[in-house]
Amino acid sequence: MKYSIGIDFGSLSGRAVLTRVSDGVIVASAVSKYKHGVMSEFLPSGVRLEQDWALQDPHDYLEVLCETIHSVINESGVSSSDVVGIGIDFTSCTVLPLGKDLKPLSFSEPDNPHAYVKLWKHHAAQEEADLINDIAEKRGESFLSRYGGKISSEWLFPKLLQILREDEPTYARISCFIEACDWIVYVLSGRLTRNEAATGYKAIWSKKEGFPSDDFLGALDERFRHVVEEKITGEIVPIGIRVGKILPEIAEWLGLNKDVEISSGHLDAACSLIGAGIKESGNMLAVVGTSTCHMIIGTDERKVPGMCGYVYGGMNPDVYGYEAGQSCVGDHFQWLVENCITEEYVNEASKAGMSIFSLLAEKASKKKPGASGLIALDWWNGNRSILVDGSLTGLLLGCTLQTKAEDIYRALVEATAFGTRIIIDTFNDNGIPVNVFSCSGGIARKDAFVMQIYADVLGIDVHVVESKENAALSASILGAVAAGIYKNVYAAMDSMSNRQRKIFHPNQANHIIYNEIYEEYKELYDYFGRKNHVMKKLKYISEKNR
Amino acid sequence: MKYSIGIDFGSLSGRAVLTRVSDGVIVASAVSKYKHGVMSEFLPSGVRLEQDWALQDPHDYLEVLCETIHSVINESGVSSSDVVGIGIDFTSCTVLPLGKDLKPLSFSEPDNPHAYVKLWKHHAAQEEADLINDIAEKRGESFLSRYGGKISSEWLFPKLLQILREDEPTYARISCFIEACDWIVYVLSGRLTRNEAATGYKAIWSKKEGFPSDDFLGALDERFRHVVEEKITGEIVPIGIRVGKILPEIAEWLGLNKDVEISSGHLDAACSLIGAGIKESGNMLAVVGTSTCHMIIGTDERKVPGMCGYVYGGMNPDVYGYEAGQSCVGDHFQWLVENCITEEYVNEASKAGMSIFSLLAEKASKKKPGASGLIALDWWNGNRSILVDGSLTGLLLGCTLQTKAEDIYRALVEATAFGTRIIIDTFNDNGIPVNVFSCSGGIARKDAFVMQIYADVLGIDVHVVESKENAALSASILGAVAAGIYKNVYAAMDSMSNRQRKIFHPNQANHIIYNEIYEEYKELYDYFGRKNHVMKKLKYISEKNR
Repeated sequence: MKYSIGIDFGSLSGRAVLTRVSDGVIVASAVSKYKHGVMSEFLPSGVRLEQDWALQDPHDYLEVLCETIHSVINESGVSSSDVVGIGIDFTSCTVLPLGKDLKPLSFSEPDNPHAYVKLWKHHAAQEEADLINDIAEKRGESFLSRYGGKISSEWLFPKLLQILREDEPTYARISCFIEACDWIVYVLSGRLTRNEAATGYKAIWSKKEGFPSDDFLGALDERFRHVVEEKITGEIVPIGIRVGKILPEIAEWLGLNKDVEISSGHLDAACSLIGAGIKESGNMLAVVGTSTCHMIIGTDERKVPGMCGYVYGGMNPDVYGYEAGQSCVGDHFQWLVENCITEEYVNEASKAGMSIFSLLAEKASKKKPGASGLIALDWWNGNRSILVDGSLTGLLLGCTLQTKAEDIYRALVEATAFGTRIIIDTFNDNGIPVNVFSCSGGIARKDAFVMQIYADVLGIDVHVVESKENAALSASILGAVAAGIYKNVYAAMDSMSNRQRKIFHPNQANHIIYNEIYEEYKELYDYFGRKNHVMKKLKYISEKNR
Repeated sequence: MKYSIGIDFGSLSGRAVLTRVSDGVIVASAVSKYKHGVMSEFLPSGVRLEQDWALQDPHDYLEVLCETIHSVINESGVSSSDVVGIGIDFTSCTVLPLGKDLKPLSFSEPDNPHAYVKLWKHHAAQEEADLINDIAEKRGESFLSRYGGKISSEWLFPKLLQILREDEPTYARISCFIEACDWIVYVLSGRLTRNEAATGYKAIWSKKEGFPSDDFLGALDERFRHVVEEKITGEIVPIGIRVGKILPEIAEWLGLNKDVEISSGHLDAACSLIGAGIKESGNMLAVVGTSTCHMIIGTDERKVPGMCGYVYGGMNPDVYGYEAGQSCVGDHFQWLVENCITEEYVNEASKAGMSIFSLLAEKASKKKPGASGLIALDWWNGNRSILVDGSLTGLLLGCTLQTKAEDIYRALVEATAFGTRIIIDTFNDNGIPVNVFSCSGGIARKDAFVMQIYADVLGIDVHVVESKENAALSASILGAVAAGIYKNVYAAMDSMSNRQRKIFHPNQANHIIYNEIYEEYKELYDYFGRKNHVMKKLKYISEKNR
């Protein structure tokens, strides 16, 4: 019996699965948290960070890699000699600078904020994103249309340009600026690659057109003209290929055999169709977690306004993968629980033996849609699709003296559902029809309250992927392909994907009410997203006065 | 030595003071809460109330009257034979139906919601207010311009029309629909009067034009045509006059002598200029409590859009009293503390021996204005001035994952300050210049954090009336006048008013930042108050789906 390992690096922890390559059964899994979590206020040394920063320490990834691999081998009782491949997926755009020695710059410069990993939700490069968008629009750069008309501040170029503009000496010491997934692949295999998915979605690259031109990059900042040649180094490779054998010293460190094959990296959301066995176009998969990524494949090239991007081979091989996203989903549910829940509710939940989320859901369920009169714009972390604007902020409207925490919770859940509906409407209107809506991820799997609201708001069935390790399973499928067990990713999916689903059907009465509220959501969405600049102005005032 | 008693009936409790008539020194005071508080969900018998109702039980007023009077007499050691007069002020528009026997209808119909006192913040008569405004506008009724162009749902006619439309049999049993202040005066003296202040501000009456015509009232509802003659009974009298001696059985019940004179009623906010000794025009007094009333006197008649109204003799005798208001001030600070404060904050405040408000203020003070990026529209309870629209709701904009409870608190405080600034701007722009800004009331007196923000937002000194019994002192001044100690209210003010002040000076650096934020506040104010109807639509959806 042969096995492969898939490791899914999330925002707060990494999860490894050990998967039987014959049928995709997961025989062991392990999760380990990053010791430093997300650093948004201070570095470990106490250096203070600016507003909107979100860093990670690459040491944490290595520890999680080692711990979880040892753990799945030990837990399963599988002989390490039966492990044939490793696949990696990673939350993105999570990028780090490597120094001249191709080691993370933060290893040698622990007090330097710009030396660390910039997590996807590092939102301090909005000025750079604005500059990129502004100049790209003026120059009529064709790449803009591949990304819904806007480059996000979360992506590679804005983040790297931020380093240049704020700290040129650090910028000068960077020999390579790379996605964390590709860095892990490099650590494992010793071969520096960039996977087409991450490079396509997050680094303004396409197979046809390559990277933005030096002229464009020079127009942003003359010192940035040769950034591709200087810093975006490494061979660009498709997803699902064999990068090479594991390095002997790494095999030893991880307790694996020296013949293990390493697959090219992939993105945590974009890879999910593989684990879920979704090959067909028209089936949108939303990975609902701290944020949400929406993925759908297409055989044609279409321009969908405000989506995050489309990349040929970016999800499944040899087809277009279209991606959209919501920057803040579970993140602001958690924000509410951490900041706005009274002792009384904590005690009530504790007595009933339930989580705060369950208590809020139970209380909120007692009311009909619309009863609270509250509505939210779910922009606590900006808006990724379809406005592509990190400088937007959250809104809560309809507050009265009767408003309770459960009403706010429900309004936030509904706002994310309305946001999803806008995304689906936009795909439908632009030649990528959404016929089936599927969800995976922790919230989708665990929270029936949230999923039922999604079904009621959308008015269509919501198919929940039941596997709790869907992304890691996808990565392990890529590991099996790298090891040559299957001739390609699709063949591996036929044997290894998990197609179990739980279905939430819409309640039609609720759907009708939500249709009314959706009209109001759209009005606010359009007004604050496009016409009124109060949010941006307040953010500007905030930055001046911190 | 002679004394008078002033009793100030608030939203949750009543306060009596025993005042030396020679110099206005308060020798004793007592507070007592209404046993049933505000009934917004259930009657005491368990009958469920609709959304936006806010009722009180008139028994509570009688208990508070008796308890507090006994208490000030006992506490002071003053002989009850030295008490010469009683003045009453009451939160308004707080109205109740009397039956054929002129007893409160709720005494005989305890299960009937419409039999109870409708507190000022009963907001369930918005449809009736809309109807009144609509028909008045169509007919070109001149009274509209006295009330800033709109009649509030909080006032007498909408509340009485609500009873007629929802429960005609109850309406038929009402022989008199009256302000609680005038009812208390009736209980004390046996003489049914209506004071000009309440009747002018809250019952669409003026000395020149009287009540709305029967034709207008009949156009609202044919059954409403003769409502003035049928239900708005009682002689209309100026404030500060002697209504009559106390009834002997009431004197006995209250432990007072039979020669005590009873003054005509007054409104709790409108009477405040008297206690604070404000005779001059140009000095606005804001009573900052659960809600805020803004008062300023004028010698001319001016039309100020969106104010609550102006009444000749409505504040001080023989001058115009202009009133504006904010429906929700302390109320939504309290809402935040009750609904959105974590156990951690409660423990932190408790350890530091401070209130939650002080803790929030301390944390919020550490940031500069604008730093949180948050802004609010303080419409948790609708907007009284200058939009006069109870169907507006609260808004919080600029939320991020970094938003803390203290940021929300500060945004709410700032929103009430911006709302006050809009009111002041409107008076300035319409011929009633505001040269001095004074504040009284619990929040003004106790909360330096709030007052400093008011100074910083307004950019002018804020003069805080230090007396904690200002309204009750005003009432006791009226009691002294009724007893003939002074020839009129102004003469009594010269001897008895309290002119002590604490002054908050604006921080100019903060004021400059607030000027920027005020521009954004005005944009949101105008958009949601006048152009966009999302708030009203959601409220409508909410009412349909409760």
